[in-house]
Amino acid sequence: MPVSELLTLTDVSACCAPIARAPIASDHAESLARSLKALADPARLRLVSMVAAHEDSEACVCDLTEPLGLSQPTVSHHLKVLVDAGFLTRSKRGIWAYYRLVPGSLDAVAGLLTTV
Amino acid sequence: MPVSELLTLTDVSACCAPIARAPIASDHAESLARSLKALADPARLRLVSMVAAHEDSEACVCDLTEPLGLSQPTVSHHLKVLVDAGFLTRSKRGIWAYYRLVPGSLDAVAGLLTTV
Repeated sequence: MPVSELLTLTDVSACCAPIARAPIASDHAESLARSLKALADPARLRLVSMVAAHEDSEACVCDLTEPLGLSQPTVSHHLKVLVDAGFLTRSKRGIWAYYRLVPGSLDAVAGLLTTV
Repeated sequence: MPVSELLTLTDVSACCAPIARAPIASDHAESLARSLKALADPARLRLVSMVAAHEDSEACVCDLTEPLGLSQPTVSHHLKVLVDAGFLTRSKRGIWAYYRLVPGSLDAVAGLLTTV
């Protein structure tokens, strides 16, 4: 299925109530599962965390590889998954790529899980 | 690794700040990833949602199988994953098993993801 046909994180958080409020519809479950799957990896959680906690919620890929202790291609793969899922954006400046947390993206997921 | 040696959902939510506040430690990333993986499946999200939205946040397995359109063994497998991850508890009464949302379990994950 092309990405354009999938519900995005923004669609789901805009349309849908928290999952504990009423039984979630099948297409929303698919969409939220995809977002959670993108986060459900220790390396990707650490990458999101490092980017989000960095100054201005933006970090150079050059600052992300060494602390993780993973190869540069592996880190790039994980970053691509996070960009594709809508949690990070990527911009190239000079020789480096910079990753920025998409404002509201983590909160959209948190909002769907919260029961209070 | 035995489950008893793993950080639980409660440990992580008690010990750890939201992931956007400061770079998350490796063991906390492992633990949160496990919790997210348990949720990151459309059928399991629908099960959690059906249980949580049910009266008293408790539902009989007999009410859960038909709406999902999955076989009873498949539903049982998904429910076991959710019980093992600490999102649901299971109790047997008469011939049926009843599943209940663990209070605070979804909110613990939501709290770790929120940035506000």
